Amino acid sequence: MRTARLDPSDLAATESLFALSNGHIGLRGSLEEGEPHVVSGTYVNGFYEERPLPHPEAGYGFPQSGQTVVNVTDGKLIRLHVGDSPLDLRYGRVRSHERVLDLRAGVVERRTDWTAPNGSSVRVTSRRLVSFAHRMLAAICYDVEPLGDGFYLALQSDLLANESNVQPSRDPRAPAPLTRPLQGELSSCHEHRAVLVHRTARSGLRIAAGMDHLLDLPDGAVTTMESDEDLARLTVTSELKPGQRLRLVKLLAYSWSSRRSASALRDQADAALGMARLAGWDALAAQQREYLDDFWDRGDIEIDGDPALQQAVRVSMFHVLQAGARTESQAIPAKGLTGPGYDGHAFWDTETFVLPMLTYTAPEAARGALTWRHHTLPTAVARAAELGLDGAAFPWRTIHGEECSGYWPAGTAGFHVNADIADATARYVAATGNEEFAGTLGIELLVQTARLWASLGHFSNEACFRIDGVTGPDEYTAVVDDNVYTNLMAQQNLRTAADACGLWPDAAARLGVSQDEIERWRAAADVVRLPYDERLGVHAQSEDFTQHGEWDFRATPPEHYPLLLHYPYFQLYRKQVVKQADLVLAMHLRGDAFTAQQKARNFAYYEARTVRDSSLSAAPQAIIAAEVGHLDLAYDYWAEVAFTDILNVHGNVDDGVHIAAAAGTWSVAVAGFGGMRDHGGRITFAPRLPPKLHRLCFRMTFQGRTLLVDVHRDRTDGDVADAAATYRLLGGDPLDTSHHGTPVVLAVGDDVTLPLPSPPNVDPVTQPFGKAPQRQT
Amino acid sequence: MRTARLDPSDLAATESLFALSNGHIGLRGSLEEGEPHVVSGTYVNGFYEERPLPHPEAGYGFPQSGQTVVNVTDGKLIRLHVGDSPLDLRYGRVRSHERVLDLRAGVVERRTDWTAPNGSSVRVTSRRLVSFAHRMLAAICYDVEPLGDGFYLALQSDLLANESNVQPSRDPRAPAPLTRPLQGELSSCHEHRAVLVHRTARSGLRIAAGMDHLLDLPDGAVTTMESDEDLARLTVTSELKPGQRLRLVKLLAYSWSSRRSASALRDQADAALGMARLAGWDALAAQQREYLDDFWDRGDIEIDGDPALQQAVRVSMFHVLQAGARTESQAIPAKGLTGPGYDGHAFWDTETFVLPMLTYTAPEAARGALTWRHHTLPTAVARAAELGLDGAAFPWRTIHGEECSGYWPAGTAGFHVNADIADATARYVAATGNEEFAGTLGIELLVQTARLWASLGHFSNEACFRIDGVTGPDEYTAVVDDNVYTNLMAQQNLRTAADACGLWPDAAARLGVSQDEIERWRAAADVVRLPYDERLGVHAQSEDFTQHGEWDFRATPPEHYPLLLHYPYFQLYRKQVVKQADLVLAMHLRGDAFTAQQKARNFAYYEARTVRDSSLSAAPQAIIAAEVGHLDLAYDYWAEVAFTDILNVHGNVDDGVHIAAAAGTWSVAVAGFGGMRDHGGRITFAPRLPPKLHRLCFRMTFQGRTLLVDVHRDRTDGDVADAAATYRLLGGDPLDTSHHGTPVVLAVGDDVTLPLPSPPNVDPVTQPFGKAPQRQT
Repeated sequence: MRTARLDPSDLAATESLFALSNGHIGLRGSLEEGEPHVVSGTYVNGFYEERPLPHPEAGYGFPQSGQTVVNVTDGKLIRLHVGDSPLDLRYGRVRSHERVLDLRAGVVERRTDWTAPNGSSVRVTSRRLVSFAHRMLAAICYDVEPLGDGFYLALQSDLLANESNVQPSRDPRAPAPLTRPLQGELSSCHEHRAVLVHRTARSGLRIAAGMDHLLDLPDGAVTTMESDEDLARLTVTSELKPGQRLRLVKLLAYSWSSRRSASALRDQADAALGMARLAGWDALAAQQREYLDDFWDRGDIEIDGDPALQQAVRVSMFHVLQAGARTESQAIPAKGLTGPGYDGHAFWDTETFVLPMLTYTAPEAARGALTWRHHTLPTAVARAAELGLDGAAFPWRTIHGEECSGYWPAGTAGFHVNADIADATARYVAATGNEEFAGTLGIELLVQTARLWASLGHFSNEACFRIDGVTGPDEYTAVVDDNVYTNLMAQQNLRTAADACGLWPDAAARLGVSQDEIERWRAAADVVRLPYDERLGVHAQSEDFTQHGEWDFRATPPEHYPLLLHYPYFQLYRKQVVKQADLVLAMHLRGDAFTAQQKARNFAYYEARTVRDSSLSAAPQAIIAAEVGHLDLAYDYWAEVAFTDILNVHGNVDDGVHIAAAAGTWSVAVAGFGGMRDHGGRITFAPRLPPKLHRLCFRMTFQGRTLLVDVHRDRTDGDVADAAATYRLLGGDPLDTSHHGTPVVLAVGDDVTLPLPSPPNVDPVTQPFGKAPQRQT
Repeated sequence: MRTARLDPSDLAATESLFALSNGHIGLRGSLEEGEPHVVSGTYVNGFYEERPLPHPEAGYGFPQSGQTVVNVTDGKLIRLHVGDSPLDLRYGRVRSHERVLDLRAGVVERRTDWTAPNGSSVRVTSRRLVSFAHRMLAAICYDVEPLGDGFYLALQSDLLANESNVQPSRDPRAPAPLTRPLQGELSSCHEHRAVLVHRTARSGLRIAAGMDHLLDLPDGAVTTMESDEDLARLTVTSELKPGQRLRLVKLLAYSWSSRRSASALRDQADAALGMARLAGWDALAAQQREYLDDFWDRGDIEIDGDPALQQAVRVSMFHVLQAGARTESQAIPAKGLTGPGYDGHAFWDTETFVLPMLTYTAPEAARGALTWRHHTLPTAVARAAELGLDGAAFPWRTIHGEECSGYWPAGTAGFHVNADIADATARYVAATGNEEFAGTLGIELLVQTARLWASLGHFSNEACFRIDGVTGPDEYTAVVDDNVYTNLMAQQNLRTAADACGLWPDAAARLGVSQDEIERWRAAADVVRLPYDERLGVHAQSEDFTQHGEWDFRATPPEHYPLLLHYPYFQLYRKQVVKQADLVLAMHLRGDAFTAQQKARNFAYYEARTVRDSSLSAAPQAIIAAEVGHLDLAYDYWAEVAFTDILNVHGNVDDGVHIAAAAGTWSVAVAGFGGMRDHGGRITFAPRLPPKLHRLCFRMTFQGRTLLVDVHRDRTDGDVADAAATYRLLGGDPLDTSHHGTPVVLAVGDDVTLPLPSPPNVDPVTQPFGKAPQRQT
């Protein structure tokens, strides 16, 4: 991905899109010189400050404090002064300016040719990486050379704490502002290295940020180093003659802890910087490429016929990898570490959207995210008890594990997050065969979530198991009875927990699970209620949904989307208007619970009522559209989700990229057009090739194997009937799978090629007025 | 009502119960000497300050500012220093102390005999009134005499602004604290008179508080007067010899305005004080008694057989009168002007609970409250538009008309307040025949609320008119479809509006009502949906209610009531637990929509699930219990509601008395045991005499007539079958009514006595575990 503009109107978007992260450190893609910027953020996963959550009317169980990601000490800053002119692209003349995000190298390259107001011209080249190999490290290789005449320069490489640039907003998706969240504890500098240690006032977390420098300077250059509480600075002053070049490699290290002392953290940063000095830029860059080569070998997606989409798919995958790669026991926030949006919170997005991709392309990252959930299990168990429930009630949004949702109908009531965690757990276990995880962390997650459902639902007089008063994925329909998505996911949660207890009886016994409890889970799962409107022949998303009034889409002007910013919740809740795929998502994740005819009818019904006010919607819609036979529509949705951030579809990429949408882009390829399903832990395929493409080829890992699925059209006249899929196993034991229901056994060296069946004939579907996806022509 | 104790634990309750008000001014019943006190409030109806309403997550249409009643300049203070000892009942020795609320005189009398720590003994006698005759005035007649030896004394009579004594609380029923809400604008004093004018910072309201004094002093007494911004003070110093008496009559005047200048308000207070001086204490007290004589003549209730209940009923009626008497164009807050509870807001309680009593006993007061609603109509129309609705959406809670509810599921979603306003409007019109009101304010209230319902409901596919996503009276079941209470009240609203348009075609035309619109109202009303559970043979309070899980009452300890302070809303909402009469209230107000059998079955079903966590519950339960034949239960509920404040049943009388419960006490007498119904504007009776009583006699006014209904048992052996009712018209045209369905025509001088039928035989009903009303033995 590259940008050659510096348009102030998309400056913040660029900061998000060019953000680099390894899941531990995140650096927004602001320019080294710091200005102009919108949100010049630096984030370290899990590092947050608490803030009081004020409620206009108190209520039992309302969270009293929130958690907000902190913009930590900024180490990206390298300010260049060309004589008397600071490098600032808003002044002087930009002769050329380009930045490239290299997805193979894991590096953002920047090249700027600039003539200062004083007439001197300079070329600045920088390369920046956040290391996948060493999670505490980032590095910037910064070169300056004169264009034409030489000049004197000063270069200031900063560590700067307590930058703040978030403004209060009435958009609930925007972050809460924090004022000077970091309190200085320790500041040290030695030669070209400096470390600042700070602490947050309320959450009591401590962070060390360190920098060191490798310098390649002209003779006569002078360096000075200084540091105080909120600023450490290396200054280089030099004359730079024509033909000379100055290189500064800035090494950055971040470590934080809730328990370790300031000096221990300083030492940790120093140690990391020492290792980075030893490696130098070239070795750091080589390790970066190696990590990514391995990732793309296991997970790349190739698209023939749409280069822009090809790029968007890979950019999306890169951002998902960045968000999850080295989180270890921290969360994957909704915006990764690319911006402060949603306060840096993680949601159900992680388990339902992000982890499928990571499970099948970078399973260690999926394990890391689930390990974080497991770490928060005691908090979730306590929350369940507070709510009068058994088992665990995971938070709707959080950084550290405590519920931070300030509006419970679209927060705590979204209990499906618990089944989503169970779903991701079961998927990870099935896809990796990681028995050590399954028998310890995995079964605990499954059992405690199953217990939640057993206490949350009840057997009604009509001999069905009802789950009342919850909110499903569609946040425009809240606090309802028997949401089909929730009930089906809970059903699966209860069954997978019961199965896991059978497989790991000792672990089950340690958790106090009795045979009786298992039988109650199975009994509930067997009769879980799924509202169905016989008259319309469709499932009701929740009880009575199809009896509700219709939204007047024709009277809704385009600028009134997203609706939640322009209409009261009570209006949204009582009408048949769907924010995001809900029943449609159920038809993907629990496709085994619907007939093909139900899927087609349900899809058509909800398609006409879904406004996609969430970035989580287009991907599931694409997947089911592809399954039921709306291939063009599926393709259009694929493009919408793939370009979510590049085209700023939801208007809030400034606060960070949408990691779940990015992962959804992968899902549309693999689950949508690849038709990959993993019901019951077995993977199957039912590929369909969109008319626009000649070829779609994806790789995925499953139980240690790498598998390649190549869907291709041999003739290029667009006759869909000529397409076929080739399945290739790149390593490991033979794999039982299926192609459109036909059993297939794959073995290494024994490719299987099968024709694609014609897609089903389906009547066209419609979207709400004005909400059709943009056609990709 | 009298109290002879000064128990610190019920000091605040006493301040509420002995509060005096005329609907314009409210003085808490704190002692003249000011200390000890808990909440020493002085309130002037409609005088509030704004405060920001913080929301942890923003939402469209959420109110951004709240309104809180201001504790205005305190004029009650008269501090007595006996030699070197300030009169403070916590010190020295209280020889006797008694306060009496005289319900005929409208005066609180206080007599204290006290020996100071310095050994001097004194008798303080005070009488206090807030004038019904002159709404701006209050007065205190304060006498001091030595008991035994004489002494020197100093008496300080204060006007004191910016007292503040409310602490923050997590109980949503508690008021929000304000810090120094009054900014001084003007301070004047002359002879024994002083006036202070203050202004609020945000709401921009201005208030003048004035005092003047009539003094009867021993020779040689010296008076000084001083005033500054927040304090004006008259000081009397004197020697008081044995047998001498000192009298100070303190006259107080309050006036406020959002528009008038400080000097205009000062002049207004001075004028009122001048008139009060002219009258003097005796004339003010005589006018007070005259006003009350008239009220009791028109509305008294006599009970033979239970003196404590007799007193409680009259105290309740007195507090309702105080709350509503002279509001004129201001609201009747939930706590009247007796305390700062609920921030001084008015709710639907006014129309549904308070106005029935006022309509039939003090109709001018009912008109005042409805006039206030009408004044807020433009705000309600704007709110409806903001919510995307037609007509008017009146606020759930407010002082000035703007929605102040910070939690919409139990606030804005309670749309039934609009039908409740229409119901009260129609009742007032029918009961008074006030055509001038009916054809102007009345029809506007009816039409704008009908328009709300027409836009809030919709015709569903099943050819019924549904009202989805609203909250009925039961706040433990929120944001539901087709709440029976709401739907029946909306049905009546639509029909009464349609009828009014037929009666006042010119007014209807001015409001733009077309015949088509009227027909749509009637069509909707005709098919309004009323969920009914065929299996159980009861109405579902709202859609699917009877399918919900049951609350585990046996696992709920007594200290966990009220449930909303101990359980999350989501648990309350999804279970069959009812905070307060909802369907049961519908069976009272829309008793014409149910059969006798339905009433009995529904009552039994909901009785077992209603926890009475609201003071609004016991009265409707008593009324329907009486109707369906549970006379002992009805009697017990009557006692519970009558003693709500005297026994502090809900634990929050400290913040003020519950005006709606007080009015409910009247309703149990008249609508419960009197069986009075007013469906369609016609009053009918079906009296039942509880076994405990020999006689229940009540008076009410209807269309200018005063009517007396005397239900009595001739023999005292408790045989219910011997009871009879005597109907007597005390003035006006003959009246068509009925007695247990038998038509009766009443004429002046022509009493009708009819026997009471035996009450129906009914199976016993049960309450939730631990929630039976306390038996009155």
